[in-house]
Amino acid sequence: MNSNLTILVAPWIIPVVPRNTVLENHAVVIENGRILDICNADTAFKKYPNATMEKRPNHVVLPGFVNAHTHAAMCLFRGLADDLPLMQWLEDHIWPAEGKWVDKDFVADGTELAIAEMLSSGTTCFSDMYLYPDIVAKAAQKFGIRAAVGLIVTDFPSAWATGPDDYLDKGLAVHDETRSLSRVTTTLAPHAPYTVSDAPLDQVRTYADELNIPIHMHIHETSAEIEQGLSSTGDRPIERLRKLGLLNPKLIAVHMTQLLDEEIETVASHGVSVVHCPSSNAKLASGLCRVSELIAQGCNVALGTDSAASNNNLDMITEMRMAAFGAKQLEADAAALPAWQVLEMATINGAKALNQADEFGSLEAGKSADIIAIDLDHVATQPVYDPISQLVYSVSRDQVSDAWVNGNHVLKKKALKNIDLDSLIKKTKDWANKISTNHSDH
Amino acid sequence: MNSNLTILVAPWIIPVVPRNTVLENHAVVIENGRILDICNADTAFKKYPNATMEKRPNHVVLPGFVNAHTHAAMCLFRGLADDLPLMQWLEDHIWPAEGKWVDKDFVADGTELAIAEMLSSGTTCFSDMYLYPDIVAKAAQKFGIRAAVGLIVTDFPSAWATGPDDYLDKGLAVHDETRSLSRVTTTLAPHAPYTVSDAPLDQVRTYADELNIPIHMHIHETSAEIEQGLSSTGDRPIERLRKLGLLNPKLIAVHMTQLLDEEIETVASHGVSVVHCPSSNAKLASGLCRVSELIAQGCNVALGTDSAASNNNLDMITEMRMAAFGAKQLEADAAALPAWQVLEMATINGAKALNQADEFGSLEAGKSADIIAIDLDHVATQPVYDPISQLVYSVSRDQVSDAWVNGNHVLKKKALKNIDLDSLIKKTKDWANKISTNHSDH
Repeated sequence: MNSNLTILVAPWIIPVVPRNTVLENHAVVIENGRILDICNADTAFKKYPNATMEKRPNHVVLPGFVNAHTHAAMCLFRGLADDLPLMQWLEDHIWPAEGKWVDKDFVADGTELAIAEMLSSGTTCFSDMYLYPDIVAKAAQKFGIRAAVGLIVTDFPSAWATGPDDYLDKGLAVHDETRSLSRVTTTLAPHAPYTVSDAPLDQVRTYADELNIPIHMHIHETSAEIEQGLSSTGDRPIERLRKLGLLNPKLIAVHMTQLLDEEIETVASHGVSVVHCPSSNAKLASGLCRVSELIAQGCNVALGTDSAASNNNLDMITEMRMAAFGAKQLEADAAALPAWQVLEMATINGAKALNQADEFGSLEAGKSADIIAIDLDHVATQPVYDPISQLVYSVSRDQVSDAWVNGNHVLKKKALKNIDLDSLIKKTKDWANKISTNHSDH
Repeated sequence: MNSNLTILVAPWIIPVVPRNTVLENHAVVIENGRILDICNADTAFKKYPNATMEKRPNHVVLPGFVNAHTHAAMCLFRGLADDLPLMQWLEDHIWPAEGKWVDKDFVADGTELAIAEMLSSGTTCFSDMYLYPDIVAKAAQKFGIRAAVGLIVTDFPSAWATGPDDYLDKGLAVHDETRSLSRVTTTLAPHAPYTVSDAPLDQVRTYADELNIPIHMHIHETSAEIEQGLSSTGDRPIERLRKLGLLNPKLIAVHMTQLLDEEIETVASHGVSVVHCPSSNAKLASGLCRVSELIAQGCNVALGTDSAASNNNLDMITEMRMAAFGAKQLEADAAALPAWQVLEMATINGAKALNQADEFGSLEAGKSADIIAIDLDHVATQPVYDPISQLVYSVSRDQVSDAWVNGNHVLKKKALKNIDLDSLIKKTKDWANKISTNHSDH
């Protein structure tokens, strides 16, 4: 009867909903991939006597992180070209490397590397934007992570598609294919205001309405983007998108480092979700997202790492710390963006942006069992006065011990279930040998 | 003959001096606690055939980090009170907790916890400022880390001393005692401009000259400090210190988040060392140190974590990333403070600040063997195009595998030689139980 029941017991459970709450000596009961119950540990033992027991005696248990902005496959470019001015980085290094190397195999291997890194560091869902979304979808399904795969659209040809119509056609085909994949959903992913013209954006809006899926887009990343938008259209990009009918609750606006007061109001009042990428914005010197003000206006703000070429990792724990510290600095207020709030950004707010907050992003009965455990018995995270504070300000990614996605135990005591690390690292080194030989010739 | 020789071999050795250099397939040869040679690995095998071999086949080897500003014992307050405005944090939480709990036992156990954390994350030297410097010195010597112990001075009584004269008397006695400790040196540590009046500062300057030791002091940490200085003395603190003759190459000025253009020039031209603490400054919303401009003016800038109550860890790898990202944001230039430069801040510049750059801070023949190894065979740090970039932007503290201090192998394949972790964590939890019971009553 109870053979498919698991009881996960830990000294601290942070459900995220209700907000800023720590349940001590509680249990999460998992049945058929879903959370059946969250209750006192002793109650759980009595109520479900035949369940499989997973005891994590020094751990904090919480919902898996939702990394709301990635270009997963770019992990193969991690550290290829750092400490360079933005345009030199893009034009002399990243774009040429992408032009030369990105194909199906690159995306398959790079995405596998990213998924291994994400599951190992507690991310159970990622919202991606890259070429070959079909390959990304298959990798997510195969390796056991949840993904919202971006159906990328730009004006420019690439290895994946020849132009806007081809991107959309191929994207819609990927959308149809992924309906059969249990852990994969899609977003329409027009790259950015400066790379997608009005006609394809109009189609994107139409398809997003028809398919009822989000729109995932880089917006107001740099001051140069604003200047280019003003000179080419007469409008700042947000105003142009408003005129095109794109400012609505389906829109996931990534970066948003350049916001006027009235734009914060506009974004919030139109129900747009914002994805903050503090490491990428800092590393590329793009600017600062006014996160606390967006939240104060009622905007849903999620958190993303961006790619490993501009971060250089996919570690949501580091990203939470960066977000909290950045907001405190920007607001000149040590109380700004407290740990519990940045944890919401890294979990439930990402699920909200993807319109899937009824499915994951918090530990609540009925939701999918997307859960992680983090071992706090480490000299750098002792003592524990407040596990939420510890999680955001002291934990490192390598303390993540376990991850369940839809109840599947994909990371168990630090061992990945579906990925052979030795062969993955060998493949990664082979790519690097090829790429670096070519890159130094460049 | 060669029984005391060790050859450490790795694919990448970063000596720090010469600057921005990676030696591939080299070896560091250690004899009697010192670096005897750095050469091609094959050459080393032939030249020193009877040496003990330490192969680290996936590792980067570099000088141990010099954490240039700590209050080590405060690790026992890690996470006790976060996300609070600075004065509320200090006045309602940290100072009362210190008043109630800080004694010899607290400092002994808290410093042991800090040393365990520091050695595990690659720090081989720390420059401390706290009550009971005698206890800190003994802990450093016992557990095998190098320390510059601050002989703290303030106008206010504490558990350690009754007032300025008593602080100085006790400090000088500690200085004398530590002469017999091989790894411990001292600094004079007047707490801050707003807590130490002119007369004791004058004595500090005199003793620093007599003993030829550095002066370690918080300076220009917050705007409130500047305002207080102006209203009580008529001068900004740096100008007051200049008049007192304290601006000289012995001075280690910590934080320095509030600097006018002319103060950058003054500090640099007087040979003052600055310690940048980016995590602490962000978490407490203190302000931003103008690091790139200080370096451009020729100032020696080192790196510190500050205490675990305001960080909340003692992880120099995270601190390097914070420093690089913060400088890029402040300068609006992705090329600002590149990885190799921030690595200098975390190693040789700390040694320079402590006037011990001839002894440690880089891997050079003749220097003390203060060395660490970091394993890059991790999904989050693959592939490796540039090991310096990887180290600053991708590595986590838990990839540090080995540390040698003065040739002693104090961290070996992640196991601490001199510290029993189980009993340390038990002691830590006992402290937390006492402190949190009292703190929640507060």
